[in-house]
Amino acid sequence: MTTTHAQTGAEPLPAAGSADLADAIELLGLVAQLEHMAFVRLAADSALAPTIEQRLELSRFASAAVARRDRVLARIGEIGGDPVAAVRPYDGVLDDFDARTPPSSWWERLLKAYVGYGVADDFCRLAAEGLDEESRTLVLEVLDDASHAELAVAELDAAGSKDGVLTARLALWGRRLVGEALGVVQRLLVQHPALVRLVALGSAGPQAAPANAPSKLFGELTAQHTRRMSRLGLTA
Amino acid sequence: MTTTHAQTGAEPLPAAGSADLADAIELLGLVAQLEHMAFVRLAADSALAPTIEQRLELSRFASAAVARRDRVLARIGEIGGDPVAAVRPYDGVLDDFDARTPPSSWWERLLKAYVGYGVADDFCRLAAEGLDEESRTLVLEVLDDASHAELAVAELDAAGSKDGVLTARLALWGRRLVGEALGVVQRLLVQHPALVRLVALGSAGPQAAPANAPSKLFGELTAQHTRRMSRLGLTA
Repeated sequence: MTTTHAQTGAEPLPAAGSADLADAIELLGLVAQLEHMAFVRLAADSALAPTIEQRLELSRFASAAVARRDRVLARIGEIGGDPVAAVRPYDGVLDDFDARTPPSSWWERLLKAYVGYGVADDFCRLAAEGLDEESRTLVLEVLDDASHAELAVAELDAAGSKDGVLTARLALWGRRLVGEALGVVQRLLVQHPALVRLVALGSAGPQAAPANAPSKLFGELTAQHTRRMSRLGLTA
Repeated sequence: MTTTHAQTGAEPLPAAGSADLADAIELLGLVAQLEHMAFVRLAADSALAPTIEQRLELSRFASAAVARRDRVLARIGEIGGDPVAAVRPYDGVLDDFDARTPPSSWWERLLKAYVGYGVADDFCRLAAEGLDEESRTLVLEVLDDASHAELAVAELDAAGSKDGVLTARLALWGRRLVGEALGVVQRLLVQHPALVRLVALGSAGPQAAPANAPSKLFGELTAQHTRRMSRLGLTA
């Protein structure tokens, strides 16, 4: 267990049996960073979107990501963490992923947002099972905002149903995205043992050995990905 | 006078003597577009900012620009306009300006936001004098959010006071920016006679001839620019 966290007595603290505070802060920092990156991405999407209506709507989604990120940063402060310090270790966490998966069209960009970053969100959702109740509820609420996913599904569905070649190319693109995204999760687990502990705490109760948690985790992430692709009528 | 506007009887309408509704919608569309571009720019600044603290803060400014833009779009709807149609004529209105003034450093970028886009804001403020009271109040409120300007002033001031070479280069950059920005205003007036009518309505009361309004306008915009530069300790 790490011992670097500072507790402030007046704030709601995790119940016994749930994650160490420093571990909780480490996951919350990741969630905040992912929401911040969602903001950056949605803002760039807004600048690139083909119609004014989409540009307006995407800018509202970007704003909503800022609000969600700030809720998570506020929670970090509440349980005694430093919000900026919590986010710092994840600076550039998706740079490698982004460099390896440059979308070559608006559709590839949409699918990347829905499928690629969806894996990171699923990972945080699973790790959140190991958090104290208040932090867990917050993380699940924050990650549950599906408005952008709905837009992506609707647009991809409309485009794909008219175009067999596009569907085949997007299915291939989806497979590349999930492979790279699972690689990101793998690196996160290596670099942040706190996240491994949270996943182990959250998975299958106390009898599950922490060592088994990662393979179970990757199985779950792959299953979620398959579900997401089939919602779009694409083969995973 | 243009006659393309649709009035909806239940909404607050401009008082007699103030601008034609279609003219008002034309200015509100410009203000909404400028706020939307402020969002795009602040979001890009957030992605480029050197520190995490600045990235977080700039993303909040970007969100605030979305909220301000949406207030203006709502007003367009209230007085019977179509928000998306009102914004459309200004699509790409600053593309030329941006292509001619690519900032070569973080400081040049900050100064561009403060000085370059400041001219556009000042122009809207002056034209807003010709609007009905409710629309005018809204435009002045929306353009009054100075939080980003404060940040720019503080940072440029801190950087410039330590570095004479930077100060000299930024003064030069400011002169280029204002020249190009006044060119944008000139093109706006040529392409949107409604804006000329609003400026004339707003300036110096009924005895001022509309034909004189533009030269008075450019005098005011230049004076505002000089004030802004001297706040930074830069020669205009």
